[in-house]
Amino acid sequence: MKPLPLSKAFTLLEPGPVVLVTTRSAQGCNVMTISWTMVMDFTPRFTLTTGPWNHSYAALKKSKECVIAIPTVDQIDQVVGIGTCTGADTDKFKQFGLTPLEGQIVKAPLIKECLANIECKVVDIVSKHNIVVLEGVAAYLDTTRKEKRTLHAVGDGTFIVDGERINRKRLMRSKLPPGV
Amino acid sequence: MKPLPLSKAFTLLEPGPVVLVTTRSAQGCNVMTISWTMVMDFTPRFTLTTGPWNHSYAALKKSKECVIAIPTVDQIDQVVGIGTCTGADTDKFKQFGLTPLEGQIVKAPLIKECLANIECKVVDIVSKHNIVVLEGVAAYLDTTRKEKRTLHAVGDGTFIVDGERINRKRLMRSKLPPGV
Repeated sequence: MKPLPLSKAFTLLEPGPVVLVTTRSAQGCNVMTISWTMVMDFTPRFTLTTGPWNHSYAALKKSKECVIAIPTVDQIDQVVGIGTCTGADTDKFKQFGLTPLEGQIVKAPLIKECLANIECKVVDIVSKHNIVVLEGVAAYLDTTRKEKRTLHAVGDGTFIVDGERINRKRLMRSKLPPGV
Repeated sequence: MKPLPLSKAFTLLEPGPVVLVTTRSAQGCNVMTISWTMVMDFTPRFTLTTGPWNHSYAALKKSKECVIAIPTVDQIDQVVGIGTCTGADTDKFKQFGLTPLEGQIVKAPLIKECLANIECKVVDIVSKHNIVVLEGVAAYLDTTRKEKRTLHAVGDGTFIVDGERINRKRLMRSKLPPGV
């Protein structure tokens, strides 16, 4: 896991991959699968939609920290498995063979097997809409990984895998933030 | 454009495609390119991050209505073009050869050339975070269209095209809402 400049961290979430969100509490580490995320700015700030129906929510709310980890297509069965059981009765790191790594700033663990990780602080919770506002404080990318294709949850039990990449950098130049 | 059951509308946005958002004001129709969206529930409720820096914001705020249209890979240069000019001085429907269609509920236009359209009402604006909360009130899918691959903006001037689709419906059954 090499550090990734924070100015580029939003590019991990903007294309809409399904992510794993880790938390740490007195009970240990937990992880949930989340597809409802949004980039809010380039600092970078993100939102998740989550609430008391997710077991991780209590730890997220209390610790005010989490890590957003980005899995790839070869991890699809871990992504689905994590999303269909609960940390209330399962040690998901053990169950799904995930290796927790210590971050630099937050206590929630990075996931060694993922393509990228973003350490995040909770900066606000908009309770009315179940929106958790996060600020990324450190980011990492596994530059040695061959499989880089992320997954996009459709919501009907199917997942779309990243296909070809099209370059429009020249035309987009006026809209790109510094450092990207 | 065939009607799509509202219970399935969230599946258009959950995989994170770049979208076009149309509005209507006394000055006419406008459209902007947005990648910062999030699904919030299955009713369906969505958020956009936008604010006064987008010309469409005034119309969105005043009319409390918009349409989210989903373009596909063959429309990439319209998507980029729409995102790099402003409705303040450009009739973007004319400039980019888009055909406005009347919706059933809101006054903002559907875009005929897009794969899908969702008519939306603004239900709240969380000003502190520039979050616009939308409720989808009608949805449409062009079932005759051959090109169905959507675009995912990375944010660095590149776009990832939908690749293969993987089916995990059986394993996900416990998590899928009714009607999907």
